Amino acid sequence: MTTQQLTEQIQLKKSFLSVGLDVDLNKIPQHLLETKDQIFEFNKAIIDATHDLCVSYKPNVAFYEAYGIKGWQALQKTINYINENYPEMFTIADAKRGDIGNTSSMYAKAFFEDMDFDSVTVAPYMGKDSVEPFLAFENKHTILLALTSNEGAFDFQTLKIDGKEVYKQVLETSKTWKNSENLMYVVGATKAEYLTDIRKIVPDSFLLIPGVGAQGGSLSDVCKYGMNANVGLLIASSRSIIYASNQKDFAEKAREEALKMQQEMASILDNQ
Amino acid sequence: MTTQQLTEQIQLKKSFLSVGLDVDLNKIPQHLLETKDQIFEFNKAIIDATHDLCVSYKPNVAFYEAYGIKGWQALQKTINYINENYPEMFTIADAKRGDIGNTSSMYAKAFFEDMDFDSVTVAPYMGKDSVEPFLAFENKHTILLALTSNEGAFDFQTLKIDGKEVYKQVLETSKTWKNSENLMYVVGATKAEYLTDIRKIVPDSFLLIPGVGAQGGSLSDVCKYGMNANVGLLIASSRSIIYASNQKDFAEKAREEALKMQQEMASILDNQ
Repeated sequence: MTTQQLTEQIQLKKSFLSVGLDVDLNKIPQHLLETKDQIFEFNKAIIDATHDLCVSYKPNVAFYEAYGIKGWQALQKTINYINENYPEMFTIADAKRGDIGNTSSMYAKAFFEDMDFDSVTVAPYMGKDSVEPFLAFENKHTILLALTSNEGAFDFQTLKIDGKEVYKQVLETSKTWKNSENLMYVVGATKAEYLTDIRKIVPDSFLLIPGVGAQGGSLSDVCKYGMNANVGLLIASSRSIIYASNQKDFAEKAREEALKMQQEMASILDNQ
Repeated sequence: MTTQQLTEQIQLKKSFLSVGLDVDLNKIPQHLLETKDQIFEFNKAIIDATHDLCVSYKPNVAFYEAYGIKGWQALQKTINYINENYPEMFTIADAKRGDIGNTSSMYAKAFFEDMDFDSVTVAPYMGKDSVEPFLAFENKHTILLALTSNEGAFDFQTLKIDGKEVYKQVLETSKTWKNSENLMYVVGATKAEYLTDIRKIVPDSFLLIPGVGAQGGSLSDVCKYGMNANVGLLIASSRSIIYASNQKDFAEKAREEALKMQQEMASILDNQ
């Protein structure tokens, strides 16, 4: 999927919502636990109930990995279901991978080819040769961690190198890498005021923004400081949508929450 | 496994070698491709041929993930085989994970509980709350990326924050985290001269050292600058051992290569 196609979907659906499929068996409705493919059945219901309100799904791979082989089967089944039924969706494997060159190639192959995700999140600590193998895939996107939404972001990311924060150094350096046009960036919504500076460095890139809602970030602030002419934003939301109810009405309630966000987004897009 | 038990194994075997089980189906002997469990059969042969010469096995998870569900089954079978037959081994899931708190907990559970690895490699970029969930497991070890052995290490890790390199900042800050006694660190052998400074910050910690051999690092330099009273080193070596031959004699040749390294290590330990 190209970024232009993604922008078209955003304009069509008046939504730049990415629903996080972070399935925790302790949190899903009781009645689903009796089904064979618990994780997949949960995802399928959420996807069917929300697909017209969002442009992207983002399974966090950790949640699947924690269930071992059963989890990987559920992840594979989920991405297949999305690709077959809703091919217009921008899919994100939230994996935060990063390793030396030939090993990063293995990860890239796993997510881009075998599972056919549109994008994968990648950590920057190991530098250029750990990220470029991901960038080599055409029409696939590498979403680099820049400024994350957690407390620990202040441990290293915001420290200054010659007066410039580490995350800004990451943004600037990454622009020099081969096929850097395939880069997007993770920027936490809890630090919306940082977006002005970030947009000076990466004016055109898509930003994946976690932390709106549950973690306290404001959608309007994020849009005010972060939106560009192509929108350029994907707002990741997981728990507040997928766990809106843990009863039989979970999919319906998830739709209600997604609708609230979509309507807020439509209003922002209309007033642009 | 405790670090004291690891040191005892090192003294007993006169080896601080960690064999990297990075299985690439393009590189393993042709005759194994005809077996059902190709990856596991390769690992089993390597393990049986080298177990008395090393103290640790380190599968890089990317190589397994790249083969999808088949790969995860092979990883599970491999760690089970080691734990059942060679419980004295220090096992490392080289996964380079790192995510926000509750997600890191999922990864920690997957590697420490479900698969029963002794340790896992973790990336530091997201800071304290992304690493502490791993540190909470008793007698399990979190091997934090500090200074890696690849070219990209110079992109961010060696840049200076207030006159101090990022990787040193990582070492120092990590010492303040809860259960930091469960930390070990990845330090690339290609930068052996950095070990003097590193030992000033983490004198007692175990260091996992990739990059000896294939990537050009020198074992004697690493030991000269990095060894402490408890040895405190694990030398990771993969390709030069496991792909010493791609014929029917692959396990025998792997043993020969492992023996060369073990003998070099024994000589260093005897002359300590």
